[in-house]
Amino acid sequence: MKDVVSLIRTKRDGKKLDPDEIRYLINGIADQTIPDYQAAAFLMATYLKGMDQAEARALTEAMMHSGDILDLSGIDGFTCDKHSTGGVGDKITMIIAPMAAALGIKVPMYSGRGLGHTGGTIDKLDSVPGFQSTLENERFMENLQTIGIANSMQTDRIAPADKILYALRDVTATVDSIPLITGSIMSKKLACGAGGLVLDVKFGKGAFMQTQEAAKELADWLIQMAPIRNIPVSALIDRMDQPLGYMVGNALEMKESIQVLQGADIEDLVEVSVAIVREMLILAGNSDNAEARALATLKDGSALTMFRRWMRSCGGDDRVVDEPDRFPASALRETVCAEANGYVQCIDAMEIGLASVYLGAGRLTKTDTLDLGTGIELHVKQGDPVETGQPLATIHYSQTRKPLTEIRRQIVDAISLESEPKARESRIVQVIRGN
Amino acid sequence: MKDVVSLIRTKRDGKKLDPDEIRYLINGIADQTIPDYQAAAFLMATYLKGMDQAEARALTEAMMHSGDILDLSGIDGFTCDKHSTGGVGDKITMIIAPMAAALGIKVPMYSGRGLGHTGGTIDKLDSVPGFQSTLENERFMENLQTIGIANSMQTDRIAPADKILYALRDVTATVDSIPLITGSIMSKKLACGAGGLVLDVKFGKGAFMQTQEAAKELADWLIQMAPIRNIPVSALIDRMDQPLGYMVGNALEMKESIQVLQGADIEDLVEVSVAIVREMLILAGNSDNAEARALATLKDGSALTMFRRWMRSCGGDDRVVDEPDRFPASALRETVCAEANGYVQCIDAMEIGLASVYLGAGRLTKTDTLDLGTGIELHVKQGDPVETGQPLATIHYSQTRKPLTEIRRQIVDAISLESEPKARESRIVQVIRGN
Repeated sequence: MKDVVSLIRTKRDGKKLDPDEIRYLINGIADQTIPDYQAAAFLMATYLKGMDQAEARALTEAMMHSGDILDLSGIDGFTCDKHSTGGVGDKITMIIAPMAAALGIKVPMYSGRGLGHTGGTIDKLDSVPGFQSTLENERFMENLQTIGIANSMQTDRIAPADKILYALRDVTATVDSIPLITGSIMSKKLACGAGGLVLDVKFGKGAFMQTQEAAKELADWLIQMAPIRNIPVSALIDRMDQPLGYMVGNALEMKESIQVLQGADIEDLVEVSVAIVREMLILAGNSDNAEARALATLKDGSALTMFRRWMRSCGGDDRVVDEPDRFPASALRETVCAEANGYVQCIDAMEIGLASVYLGAGRLTKTDTLDLGTGIELHVKQGDPVETGQPLATIHYSQTRKPLTEIRRQIVDAISLESEPKARESRIVQVIRGN
Repeated sequence: MKDVVSLIRTKRDGKKLDPDEIRYLINGIADQTIPDYQAAAFLMATYLKGMDQAEARALTEAMMHSGDILDLSGIDGFTCDKHSTGGVGDKITMIIAPMAAALGIKVPMYSGRGLGHTGGTIDKLDSVPGFQSTLENERFMENLQTIGIANSMQTDRIAPADKILYALRDVTATVDSIPLITGSIMSKKLACGAGGLVLDVKFGKGAFMQTQEAAKELADWLIQMAPIRNIPVSALIDRMDQPLGYMVGNALEMKESIQVLQGADIEDLVEVSVAIVREMLILAGNSDNAEARALATLKDGSALTMFRRWMRSCGGDDRVVDEPDRFPASALRETVCAEANGYVQCIDAMEIGLASVYLGAGRLTKTDTLDLGTGIELHVKQGDPVETGQPLATIHYSQTRKPLTEIRRQIVDAISLESEPKARESRIVQVIRGN
């Protein structure tokens, strides 16, 4: 085996590392025999010189093997996971898990908390009174088998190399590298053991990837990692220029998820949720009328029934379904109104996401505490006509991290109005199916 | 001021850092408020994306200001320093310091120890019985004023940022970057306060730079840093494919230096020494017949007289001049003989340097101790005709770090023979004079 410096040199010079070399680096980073500064130099060399997909596969595999690899083979039926690259107002998990479970698909969920402008599933679930968002392994397996939905926090034992690498990437300007992102996402997802995976790769103002092309490229790389565990994978490429749905904030998003499960026709949420569940059915080899069957779960109450069972199975108070006032709520509300006539052209997801963080709905740093009832309730969507003075959004707040007047301004500015109408764009622009 | 991550990002994206930004980074690295991993990412980004000379100047200046800046303004006359990028058998300092002093130039020497295939001036001086190679500041200034030569070890207080950066570069594959080398060399040399500087930039098998073009480029960059302290600088570009002179090893090299100071016509040593002293005279504004005057110091005994004074001023036994057996000597000697007839084409400096390290004349790691009497005495030079069985070299050794038979083989293989004669090449291929 070569020494670490010569491996860094290989990548620095734009040459290919073989799987043994990548494994040696990742194992050394995981057990910290390779110091941070050599890991950082390797990351920057990789950022600037890239990796090919064979290298990314070795990277993903080595990172996956740095920790526990979960075994879901004892679960009856098809287990299918979903991963979103992160968005604003992205409450899709809470909708698709009951939908898929209603169709017999088992959905194991290892989720995280939010950071920055994007929210986290665990935070949203925490807003349900009594709900235990992190199940022990035995309960997790039992719930997955019996209800079809199980949720837990992704632990440090899953791909610990990623934890070290991600923390380093964050402070060394090496985050947005396709091979490194690929290793990070897929090492964790593949370690979690599901039998299939639907990827929701977002692009636009509120997303990690700025363009459709970049999202498409990332999706291609992610899918190419599937042979490591030989599972079928689908990827949706979808827009995240604007928040998903109308609600941004933890309890607000849970309420809106329930509305969709009750059959509310919130166009973009339904579009994305139905597409993800359709892909899960296709991956399960059960593709006949997949889209219609997925949609039906929202209309016939079967997804809502699964949602109630899911909530109760984790100690959650399912009376929130009929009595949304049981969710935590902010002390104060303020309405933001239109300052001109026009048509909504775009609602800037990044700005809305950041504004919600200042309301206490998200974290600026990992140690920030959340105010689960706070957030932004939009009253308009792209294409809607508005008149001066018409309410555009309601701010749900208690204490704010910057003056409310600035947050108001940020929200007004995020909602761009033009004199010409603009048709609402569909969110999903492409579907890519692996193997 | 921007944060560290955004400065790394700037360089990562190939953009220019302004002097304030570079100063912020270097200060943070020097006081260790910027952690090693961010420094490592910055080094790799700089390695791969480069810097322009304005950035290198800011880098050099910031590194220089990270420690003490010596003041030689109290010394009468012109002070002139010399820097070699490192070679094998490079005992030039011991020859040029007395030559220059004999011509009235004051030579302040802050030297280091050897590592790897290249030797260090301090180690060579240590082989003189009684010689104190590291003078305290007061003695240093006194010797410089009265004798014209003063020697000390470069301390940690000179450009401490370089010490941190160099250690990191060594383990992150970011050593051979022109702007980083420039900052490292010139921050230290400019901090040492001499009124002029002659650079000896080597290229070839035994040198850091492999090609003449690379050495020329480095020399250009080094010279462009001189305006930081507004001093005149000359650079020689010279070959280091083969060892300088015949001797490689600490005491052996001191003996050979004395031979040159006694007027021995060892072609390459005389060529390089005379050229350096000529450049010093030119920098002093005293250029008439500079080359002839430099050479004369070797022929009229004036340089040898200065050498004796220098040795005595530091407690060294100057009887070594007439009685070289007073130098430490190795317990054992072994002759390496030619295995064929032919003409010497080349003597591989890198291989000879590495072989000498295995004899104890140099260090593999910083903590290795030296055996000062050991080394390699060559009996032939490029162009010499040799016959089978003729001695090519004598190995001076006691204990060796690898089997002697392997070292013998390494030396025989390093001396390449061909059937056609080859003219001896001059060492110096170019002189570049700054401002």
